[in-house]
Amino acid sequence: MSLPVTALHAASASAASLPPSPEAVAAVIAALAASFGNRLVTSQAVRHQHGHTLTWIPTQAPDAVVYPQSTEEVAEIVKLCAGHGVPVIAFGTGTSLEGHVNAPFGGVTVDLTQMKRIVAVHAEDLDVTVEAGVTRKELNEHLRDQGLFFPIDPGADASLGGMAATRASGTNAVRYGTMKDNVLALTAVMADGSVIRTASRARKSSAGYDLTRLLVGSEGTLGIITEVTVKLHGIPEAISAGVCPFPSVQAACDTAIITIQTGLPVARIELLDDVMIRGVNLHSKLGLPETTMLFVEFHGSEAGVKEQAERFGEIAAEYGGGPFDWATKAEDRSKLWQARHDAYWAARALRPGTESVATDVCVPISRLAECVEETKRDIEASGLIAPIAGHVGDGNFHTQPLVDLENEDEVERCRGFIDRLVKRALAMDGTCTGEHGVGQKKIKYLELEHSPATLDVMRLIKRSLDPQNILNPGKIIAL
Amino acid sequence: MSLPVTALHAASASAASLPPSPEAVAAVIAALAASFGNRLVTSQAVRHQHGHTLTWIPTQAPDAVVYPQSTEEVAEIVKLCAGHGVPVIAFGTGTSLEGHVNAPFGGVTVDLTQMKRIVAVHAEDLDVTVEAGVTRKELNEHLRDQGLFFPIDPGADASLGGMAATRASGTNAVRYGTMKDNVLALTAVMADGSVIRTASRARKSSAGYDLTRLLVGSEGTLGIITEVTVKLHGIPEAISAGVCPFPSVQAACDTAIITIQTGLPVARIELLDDVMIRGVNLHSKLGLPETTMLFVEFHGSEAGVKEQAERFGEIAAEYGGGPFDWATKAEDRSKLWQARHDAYWAARALRPGTESVATDVCVPISRLAECVEETKRDIEASGLIAPIAGHVGDGNFHTQPLVDLENEDEVERCRGFIDRLVKRALAMDGTCTGEHGVGQKKIKYLELEHSPATLDVMRLIKRSLDPQNILNPGKIIAL
Repeated sequence: MSLPVTALHAASASAASLPPSPEAVAAVIAALAASFGNRLVTSQAVRHQHGHTLTWIPTQAPDAVVYPQSTEEVAEIVKLCAGHGVPVIAFGTGTSLEGHVNAPFGGVTVDLTQMKRIVAVHAEDLDVTVEAGVTRKELNEHLRDQGLFFPIDPGADASLGGMAATRASGTNAVRYGTMKDNVLALTAVMADGSVIRTASRARKSSAGYDLTRLLVGSEGTLGIITEVTVKLHGIPEAISAGVCPFPSVQAACDTAIITIQTGLPVARIELLDDVMIRGVNLHSKLGLPETTMLFVEFHGSEAGVKEQAERFGEIAAEYGGGPFDWATKAEDRSKLWQARHDAYWAARALRPGTESVATDVCVPISRLAECVEETKRDIEASGLIAPIAGHVGDGNFHTQPLVDLENEDEVERCRGFIDRLVKRALAMDGTCTGEHGVGQKKIKYLELEHSPATLDVMRLIKRSLDPQNILNPGKIIAL
Repeated sequence: MSLPVTALHAASASAASLPPSPEAVAAVIAALAASFGNRLVTSQAVRHQHGHTLTWIPTQAPDAVVYPQSTEEVAEIVKLCAGHGVPVIAFGTGTSLEGHVNAPFGGVTVDLTQMKRIVAVHAEDLDVTVEAGVTRKELNEHLRDQGLFFPIDPGADASLGGMAATRASGTNAVRYGTMKDNVLALTAVMADGSVIRTASRARKSSAGYDLTRLLVGSEGTLGIITEVTVKLHGIPEAISAGVCPFPSVQAACDTAIITIQTGLPVARIELLDDVMIRGVNLHSKLGLPETTMLFVEFHGSEAGVKEQAERFGEIAAEYGGGPFDWATKAEDRSKLWQARHDAYWAARALRPGTESVATDVCVPISRLAECVEETKRDIEASGLIAPIAGHVGDGNFHTQPLVDLENEDEVERCRGFIDRLVKRALAMDGTCTGEHGVGQKKIKYLELEHSPATLDVMRLIKRSLDPQNILNPGKIIAL
């Protein structure tokens, strides 16, 4: 960092008082306006758009939104805010689901959507460095001609910076891993405005503490990610996808479990329960039978994909699943996965006018069927409408209660249901969040998941790297 | 932690003075002797055995060695040492290569070899939890009947705790990843004696800062790993391995590069140069042609392995490699990989009576051939004998200069060679250590690899989690 470590460390006792004083905010805004001109915006519409995510948390708008175009500009912003003790909130596409980008203490939102450069494609090394604002679809569009792709696919067309910050994953994770596994290195602006590069482009390294992985999933609370170097993969020679109906959630989960346990390198294996299929049919006009389904995809050589598909078919049949409906044409596959990705919106179609609440537990796969079945019974007992979709190869599933926020009783029932869902997953040695992150909404669940000692280590890290608590305050952990 | 965070944090200004006073050491030893009886050892032979690794660093012995049998006992030891400001050095099998376990300031070495419990095998979830002292061969022996294996293979029969602490990898990493990718969760004793569990057994999680990855590769400087939960894999239905000679290092590297780029899921792809093959022939009586060779292995179904092998053969032939010599019998494969693993000792056979010096650079694979070729020219120009072996699928290779430590000129030439090797790799956007870690020997190279700002972030983390600097002091980073 530009400050001597001892000075930074000495500062650790004095967190900024939050929210900052109006004078501090005014000083920062004036200085930013001078530097950034019309890339500093304080209109209510823009502030509100940045202070709201897909949650039931009321909007918490920042005092201003600034649009930097380089790491150096982000550093300038952070230094300025640090000097006045004003919060800085990183913003990618605003598609996070747990209140990650809300500004509960006001401050300056750093909107990274003007940082869109593809810095360097190293096709021979199967890696690419991009600025934080590049989205996964933009990246894949750029790479397509080179026969390469970036596999992580959380559904939304999220930015690479945001995906790194939330440790995102999605449908392909069972084969290609999560952001944790695919980020090789990061550039980040730390709380004092210093800029760090966490690692080289080497595929592996034992060169000191793993700052890459510390920043991945830190949700903008330890540093603002401005560039990301990620692994790429060759577009598979052959891809086939299919849907397979099952007589029960248990049968579908058992099929997924055996698929994983036998080492079948499935690229995607997604469960949609009968309720979710009804939503998908309404929204995407797929005309699927309204029962539990697995959507699966295989990547490999022509022969390899055929072999994988046959094996999967045998496993499914053992559990009473089938028949398959295979889509080998790219167009049909796209329609299928678009429908899966639109599940969030499809679910809402089941009960128009309600709010959709995201949940995101993940359990060891041996407990998956039990966890999903118990959850379905709980949904019914709670009188909620809550479709289920899951990345079941990883043991990760989402229920999405559709709640009338005007109905207090219903909101309470939903809160109780989510508490029980999280506790159920934790009791099975699972996690309260497989991929969405903590944001504001899961702070209380993080406290159930980790011991006080573990949370204290997280606090020590936060305090040492952001002694003033200006980086995305009020997220992940209560200080 | 058991102390309130604020108290811990307040303590951060006062690092212990190192080495500790004789009185502090005596007090700790007396208390440990009372608790641990004959599991506390102060004999010179045992202390010296623990203060020496496979390096040219002179022995730096601890004041005592203690053999705990549980996490609670490790916590008791650390609390005691913390109370007296005495260093604590974790010790697994002592097979690290960079002076990780030496005790430059004395203190207490915590030998984890009596922590050998396999805590829980979850075959259905493909994971296992073991105590830190379990070695990879012991684990695989335990798992074999269940058709499962743990793939990470650094050559030495290292302990799982030590492998996690150094972020180890080895021959299988190209397919199965490194310890970073295979550790699901850790139990660790922190600098104040508090015990943390970093994560659940869920396959993925976004629940807060990634303490698992922060401890993996931290070399005992942030906490002492006492239990490790790692991913397991099904023993492949079919395995085939083979050796393939090449006319040049360039041809072998190009073959490796194309193999990776085309997505061939090779399980191992190891380069041995002509000098190393001569050593292997001397040591293991393999009778191989003394030219650059690739040792490769494929895992999969019978059909899949056959397809992979054929494709690899085609790629190798394009670069003038071949003919193959395939070993499908387990016995022949074992002999081959034992020879590869014995390369360290084989190299020493080339020049008996000399010391072998480990090196460990890793570069983006597109630069690999260039890096190895330049390094071979440098070896020749330096008048050194230094065989080369590498995990070339990851861009990671080792040269192993054989040095007469009595010959000052030769030692100086070797030092110069290693400096140039590291700088060459860094200039190619590589790392000074792909898998061995930093220990004592690479502290100066870490300073070349990372910017001052990045190193300062590492220092802040170290200071916040170990304010007294008692956990393996003098390793990774100069404070």
